[in-house]
Amino acid sequence: MIKKIERVAMLYDFYGQLLTPRQKEILSLYYEQDLSLGEISEEYKISRQAVHDILKRSEKILQEFEEKLGLIKKFNDEQERLYKVLALLDDVEDDPTLTSEIRKVINEIIEIQDND
Amino acid sequence: MIKKIERVAMLYDFYGQLLTPRQKEILSLYYEQDLSLGEISEEYKISRQAVHDILKRSEKILQEFEEKLGLIKKFNDEQERLYKVLALLDDVEDDPTLTSEIRKVINEIIEIQDND
Repeated sequence: MIKKIERVAMLYDFYGQLLTPRQKEILSLYYEQDLSLGEISEEYKISRQAVHDILKRSEKILQEFEEKLGLIKKFNDEQERLYKVLALLDDVEDDPTLTSEIRKVINEIIEIQDND
Repeated sequence: MIKKIERVAMLYDFYGQLLTPRQKEILSLYYEQDLSLGEISEEYKISRQAVHDILKRSEKILQEFEEKLGLIKKFNDEQERLYKVLALLDDVEDDPTLTSEIRKVINEIIEIQDND
């Protein structure tokens, strides 16, 4: 369940701007502010089932954007390499010839970005 | 005009997957394969005006995605820094203490990515 929440939170960070204001609000109330279906249904004067449907539909839309644009996958691939560069830099201070390795990783990041 | 074409091409690279197949095809025929409005209108058996409207509408949709997600802006900001890192690495071989500067730039990139 934690993993599910984290996954939706990440999708929301990357693609939330593409949802309608209402979809965004309800997703935020449920996943960020931790309101229950019942509480949201009272606030919006709609049924619990309607809240549930909006959540499911919004999550599906976000997931479809990730399938089309793959921004989370790219983000993870890039971050992994950026932290690798930071780690390599520690060793470079002792052995400056290691810079070629860093160049390789930086070029990999540039390639990932170009594959948009 | 070149600038306009480059701009649409870049928007298409980043957000083309979010267009309908028909919008994608017509944009690609016009901007990538350099067909004229007349040639596209013959191929699709629709008026030149209809082709023109589809192009304008598709460009507007792509632009709206950029306004919401800002991927091109982020891409430019990140690439600028990645090339800066590559340039700095040349100097590091002579002076390994320069790594702190590279760390700073890498951390800037990580911040740009986190601001999604």
